[in-house]
Amino acid sequence: MPFSFRRLILGSPLRSERAGHERLPILLALPIFASDALSSVAYATDAILTQLQALQVRQDLYRIALPISIGIIMLIGMVVVSYWQVIFAYPEGGGSYVVARRNLGLRFGLIAASSLLVDYVLTVAVSVADGISQSFSALHQFHNLGEKLEPYRVLICVAIVLLITLANLRGVRESGALFAGPSYGFIVLIFILIAFGVYRHLVEGHPLQSVAMAQDPLAAKPLNLWVLMKGFASGCAALTGIEAVSNGVQAFKKPEARNASLTLGILGCILAVMFIGITYLATVFQIRPSEHDTVVAQIARASFGTQGTLGILFYAVQIFTTLILLLAANTAFAGFPRLASILAEDGFLPRQLAALGDRLAFNNGILVLAALAIGFLVAFKGVSQALLPLYTVGVFIAFTSAQAGMVRKSWALPTKPWLSLGVNFAGALVTLVVLGVVVSGKFWVQRELFGLSWLHEGAWMSLALMWAIYLLFKAIGTHYKHVEDQLAEIPVGFEHTLKHTVIVLVPSRIHRGIITALNYARSISPDAIAVHIAFDPSKEARLREAWEEHGGETTLIILHSPYRTLIDPLMQYLDAADRVRKDDIITVILPEFVPARWWHNFLHNAHGWLLRIRLYYRRDVIITSVRYYLDR
Amino acid sequence: MPFSFRRLILGSPLRSERAGHERLPILLALPIFASDALSSVAYATDAILTQLQALQVRQDLYRIALPISIGIIMLIGMVVVSYWQVIFAYPEGGGSYVVARRNLGLRFGLIAASSLLVDYVLTVAVSVADGISQSFSALHQFHNLGEKLEPYRVLICVAIVLLITLANLRGVRESGALFAGPSYGFIVLIFILIAFGVYRHLVEGHPLQSVAMAQDPLAAKPLNLWVLMKGFASGCAALTGIEAVSNGVQAFKKPEARNASLTLGILGCILAVMFIGITYLATVFQIRPSEHDTVVAQIARASFGTQGTLGILFYAVQIFTTLILLLAANTAFAGFPRLASILAEDGFLPRQLAALGDRLAFNNGILVLAALAIGFLVAFKGVSQALLPLYTVGVFIAFTSAQAGMVRKSWALPTKPWLSLGVNFAGALVTLVVLGVVVSGKFWVQRELFGLSWLHEGAWMSLALMWAIYLLFKAIGTHYKHVEDQLAEIPVGFEHTLKHTVIVLVPSRIHRGIITALNYARSISPDAIAVHIAFDPSKEARLREAWEEHGGETTLIILHSPYRTLIDPLMQYLDAADRVRKDDIITVILPEFVPARWWHNFLHNAHGWLLRIRLYYRRDVIITSVRYYLDR
Repeated sequence: MPFSFRRLILGSPLRSERAGHERLPILLALPIFASDALSSVAYATDAILTQLQALQVRQDLYRIALPISIGIIMLIGMVVVSYWQVIFAYPEGGGSYVVARRNLGLRFGLIAASSLLVDYVLTVAVSVADGISQSFSALHQFHNLGEKLEPYRVLICVAIVLLITLANLRGVRESGALFAGPSYGFIVLIFILIAFGVYRHLVEGHPLQSVAMAQDPLAAKPLNLWVLMKGFASGCAALTGIEAVSNGVQAFKKPEARNASLTLGILGCILAVMFIGITYLATVFQIRPSEHDTVVAQIARASFGTQGTLGILFYAVQIFTTLILLLAANTAFAGFPRLASILAEDGFLPRQLAALGDRLAFNNGILVLAALAIGFLVAFKGVSQALLPLYTVGVFIAFTSAQAGMVRKSWALPTKPWLSLGVNFAGALVTLVVLGVVVSGKFWVQRELFGLSWLHEGAWMSLALMWAIYLLFKAIGTHYKHVEDQLAEIPVGFEHTLKHTVIVLVPSRIHRGIITALNYARSISPDAIAVHIAFDPSKEARLREAWEEHGGETTLIILHSPYRTLIDPLMQYLDAADRVRKDDIITVILPEFVPARWWHNFLHNAHGWLLRIRLYYRRDVIITSVRYYLDR
Repeated sequence: MPFSFRRLILGSPLRSERAGHERLPILLALPIFASDALSSVAYATDAILTQLQALQVRQDLYRIALPISIGIIMLIGMVVVSYWQVIFAYPEGGGSYVVARRNLGLRFGLIAASSLLVDYVLTVAVSVADGISQSFSALHQFHNLGEKLEPYRVLICVAIVLLITLANLRGVRESGALFAGPSYGFIVLIFILIAFGVYRHLVEGHPLQSVAMAQDPLAAKPLNLWVLMKGFASGCAALTGIEAVSNGVQAFKKPEARNASLTLGILGCILAVMFIGITYLATVFQIRPSEHDTVVAQIARASFGTQGTLGILFYAVQIFTTLILLLAANTAFAGFPRLASILAEDGFLPRQLAALGDRLAFNNGILVLAALAIGFLVAFKGVSQALLPLYTVGVFIAFTSAQAGMVRKSWALPTKPWLSLGVNFAGALVTLVVLGVVVSGKFWVQRELFGLSWLHEGAWMSLALMWAIYLLFKAIGTHYKHVEDQLAEIPVGFEHTLKHTVIVLVPSRIHRGIITALNYARSISPDAIAVHIAFDPSKEARLREAWEEHGGETTLIILHSPYRTLIDPLMQYLDAADRVRKDDIITVILPEFVPARWWHNFLHNAHGWLLRIRLYYRRDVIITSVRYYLDR
């Protein structure tokens, strides 16, 4: 079993028939699609607070965070309604790529696709990084274990990505059973947290922790529209993952579109409540954001404490927040390879990305995603808040292009559906404006963020990456088109009367294997020619003698090679043969020698490989390998 | 020009005709063969003094060093006389391998060969390491530059080996012109040094430097036979390189044997005078050996000083000593590949070692030698005195086997040549005894030598290495013999009536390239079969349609592959074909796709290679590749 190690890691191969989708009721579908969207609750409030941290008057922060959140919730509502239209228009599963490509043309389709691919990568990076932050926040209680593990943050992030990769290579399916526990657990716990926190605030009536002013009064900024805008742009991280439902309509039980839209609505409501609740508690408890102690962890600590029966709830919140973040990362491992395979089928990515592996997973896509995500985690030292500015850009490009595609689609209909047209138009416009805000507000990020002083870059990096991917799509598309054009003309009719020129390359000594090759050559063409390339003239006589005895009627041609290379004399001979026998098809027969053990190859000359490579690039010859096997 | 970088480094290829040897007069032949033998003067006295350093009574050292040297000179005389016989017996160039193999049988021939190979490696390592020591000794004068460079000793050694390797890959020939200057310069300078030193000693009458006692009185040893023996064994390093003349008799002008033997005699005399002179001066100047300040350097400094006109002579001695050591290393780069190529021709080393490179050098042998020498230099930190114990063993094994071979040869003659028989017998006996002394005296080296405390090993390492090489010879010899046996029987007569089964592997889409392959297949056998391996049943109908249109009368067989692998279904099909068409010869035609740019390969599936490898190991098929080329 040569592949036994592979089998051990990946499991036995699966038959193609098992690729079919399971159809899920809403109750099991919701947790699958919820993880990506809801997990953003874990970092969106952090993002707003982090962005506004440098405000001159600290109370301003807690005053404007809630209005910003309300604005974002309105945006969520708008996006949800817009995507309802998408679901009904493309019940077979219309991702932004499909919608934009069909309605706005290839260019916008590819733009949407590139932003989605970058987004999937960042989903993995951000979710894993934030999951680690959530765990470290909980581990604070245990002898500062969180801080002790801090130096290994990147290493742990990478290890987790590799584990998720392995699980996906084995073909972890998006099963409702796997997702239900963590998703519902997370939802329930966050609701309990919000209820408890609100109760505690109302009863005790004062912030549980006192808050110091911004560390650096000199860097402090006044509150103005620009700051407000940047805060809003940061909070838009809450919208990541909402579009997932529209990609997976086919995962729902019939009627798919209705069930999917219902799920999306429920999801939007839960998300809105959670996000507003967390942000509200963050302002009343005057939480200070930190990568080492997340907002969720601080609120949970303030609400439940860390001791006694209620303390268990603190740990539960942290565990389930971490779990849902890892599940969100896992969904990207389904989404990225699926989208990449569609793009590969359409000829914009290498074909290999469309090939299903042994376990019915798109192995190549999974590996590419893992490599890119690890790259981001290493470059950004596993700090989720440093990765977020890059993240939101892609989401909104996808939103805008999907909505704009819907507008175009509705507009093209003979009887225009004015309501949905209006909804999608508003959606497209608003998401475009927000995209502008996000890009302009986060194009450059402040120089110093969690000690990553070299990171004076932000959204431009995602844009550059998307642009590069877009160009890659175009280049690959052009190549495949060229190939297509070249392969398309198929000559009609057959030539049954090919004339053969067959050349057998023989070494200085004639043996069994050579005789086999000669027999084969003569069976194709009775006037096959044997060619020997001589380095050492002293061996020539012996070869001629052997040929007398064993060569039969086949002509032996000896080519001298003063520079001791097989290649040049043979090439010259083939050139000559080409000229003399213009209409013939030339077959070069290489008698090859297969030793009994692989290491025996070291004991035999390796000329064969060089020759083979040179012949490979010669258009006019057919290469036939006749092997001779050794038994020991 | 794909090989332009190679050309830049190695130069243009040379024609085989240029391989002929130049024939040299004694005056130009002497320097070539002198470098290896005479260079041992640079370290042999150091070796004796280092070995005796721990003596209890320091004066003992200087009392016994000279008698030991005289003993060694007698040994040199004996070896020279013995090799005279070899030269006359094997004027075509009789290395120890040839002499031992012809007269004592294969076993002893291979033992001699393995010891010679190890010896060549150690010649390079010791010569380069000691050359560095000589240079560093001279650089002492310049602001202690020698000591400052000491940390880079290994690095510099490796760099020099690489430079010599490069020169030899370019095909530096052993030209008299190259060797004459350094060799004669060295000889003249050493003679001047000895004359000056003796004069200074006689005139000034006292040691120029006072000498302290052994550093560690506890480790001090009394003078006994054992110590004497070890000193003698160490000094035998002076004998390395003497056998070179007998390997290269053909380099001399006619009468070769007479000229060669004369050269050997002259060489022996020069060597004897130099060695005794250096040792004498070392004792009267009471030199203390050190890797950082060699005996030659200390004597030259004591004789000439380092200032003024005479001081120039000090530097000249050091420069020429370094040069002759590097030339000695260079001779091994001629000897090792030559011997390796003879062994490869005889079937005891991989054939590749017998292939001449572009520049008529045995490139593979040169690279193997360089790698091994670098290995030794790194392992022994470039300390020549640490490498010497390993060195002498091989030399004496080669001496003994050559002399014993000569005895056997003379004995077999009808009229026994009693004189030469006696000389060779004495030579064999004495070198065997010395070999015993060297092995037993240097089997374990004292634990602490120039700070290399981990080096508590000595001659046993060379013996182990030689044994390993000997086993390798045997294994390779056995393999080639097996191959020979299998290739030897050549079937008589030809089968003109081979029956063909031709299978063309076709992809899911029919294009120009496939049609070419089909045409070729049909021209070999009218009932060629097309086989498609289907991963995706949905594409089957389209393929069948295309086949209707373009496939002509050829049968298309579609094999389903539930696990999405090309290999397994094809193998099963071939197994079945084997059973059904027992007498046929099966040809598998692989239509291949050659993209216009190499990186386009990343955009096309790589299944072909895996399939090719599997087919390569299938005995019953002939593989034919029909390529289809893309232009862009």
